[in-house]
Amino acid sequence: MELETRILAKNDALATKNRAWFAGREILALNLVSSPGSGKTTLLERTIRDMKITTKLYVLEGDQATANDGERIRAAGAPAVQVNTGAGCHLEADMVARGLVELKPESGSIVMIENVGNLVCPAMFDLGESAKVVILSVTEGEDKPLKYPHMFRAAELMILNKIDLLPHVDFDVSRAIANAREVNPDIIILQVSARSGEGLETWYDWLRHEVGQAREAAFA
Amino acid sequence: MELETRILAKNDALATKNRAWFAGREILALNLVSSPGSGKTTLLERTIRDMKITTKLYVLEGDQATANDGERIRAAGAPAVQVNTGAGCHLEADMVARGLVELKPESGSIVMIENVGNLVCPAMFDLGESAKVVILSVTEGEDKPLKYPHMFRAAELMILNKIDLLPHVDFDVSRAIANAREVNPDIIILQVSARSGEGLETWYDWLRHEVGQAREAAFA
Repeated sequence: MELETRILAKNDALATKNRAWFAGREILALNLVSSPGSGKTTLLERTIRDMKITTKLYVLEGDQATANDGERIRAAGAPAVQVNTGAGCHLEADMVARGLVELKPESGSIVMIENVGNLVCPAMFDLGESAKVVILSVTEGEDKPLKYPHMFRAAELMILNKIDLLPHVDFDVSRAIANAREVNPDIIILQVSARSGEGLETWYDWLRHEVGQAREAAFA
Repeated sequence: MELETRILAKNDALATKNRAWFAGREILALNLVSSPGSGKTTLLERTIRDMKITTKLYVLEGDQATANDGERIRAAGAPAVQVNTGAGCHLEADMVARGLVELKPESGSIVMIENVGNLVCPAMFDLGESAKVVILSVTEGEDKPLKYPHMFRAAELMILNKIDLLPHVDFDVSRAIANAREVNPDIIILQVSARSGEGLETWYDWLRHEVGQAREAAFA
């Protein structure tokens, strides 16, 4: 559809501006995408608590409605700006640009953009992030990468969350990994439980590495 | 946006035709909506196995990609037609009309339309169904009705699924119910586990009642 192409082109131009702004400020910006209820906010709360001594984190919260997540993030100790999308099913680059004006993230920090819980629409909209991170929880079934291939193809990292529930669900981890690799052979996969803390060190290592890359990329 | 209004108006006109066709054929048509991984397909498999002696069921399967769900449904014993939406995030009334030509459901039967896993976009698109049924699983968190109010407002019935996992997750059932009632005071709520079978009789009772209503409605 021609109009869709025009909307995407306009969004991409604004995303390019966001990306340049993040680069200039040496900020690592991540676009967190998943189904509703995969545990994005819990993962962020824990990450903020565990990393705040070494790296400053900021959160842009996208939701159809409510300000709950923003409040949870602030309680965990990070500045958060809530962007409600109303009937919209995803964040767009201009919403991020407006959110940043309010959020005012420091140079060298991490900006986590928590997208609307939706495995479809956010895949198409570039926000200017350094990378998309897709969170899949073990209660959702191992077929999700095949059923939502655009999203898993667009992501650089997949976090397999809620592994503390593995003994109680029918979920084949190796099949989930094989399915993710089938649509995206280069995807990095980490297994964690944001609730129990298991595996989170691998996520923090990845974040620290990416923060370093963002610093180097300022003059790339 | 004007174009969005035009798309919705065109969809609504086709949905009205589907609804009249279902009424003429005394068919109960349900639009099943949820997050990815809430257990819609497992619920349908079980329902087909448990009800097939008394009521004929047909399934229209909507997915971004893959034909897995259609195959699971056929293995459970019901005719199924798979509609892949590609980049699309929801089914539309014309896809349902085309699917019905292939599915050829009998008079007096139930047609289950399994929408794309997405709590946002399917809320806006009428398919001509008798009712929307929203499935929420206990692993997704009790805040979902407040965060996706359009969907929970559009649904007549909410199925709270995976109650067998309640001992292993932090999920407050009474708060989830209160949240659903806050956005939709009339919503009917059933608690089930499609895996263990707990609570499914209440769902079958509701279906049998609605099948009766669909028969009476043919000349209403």
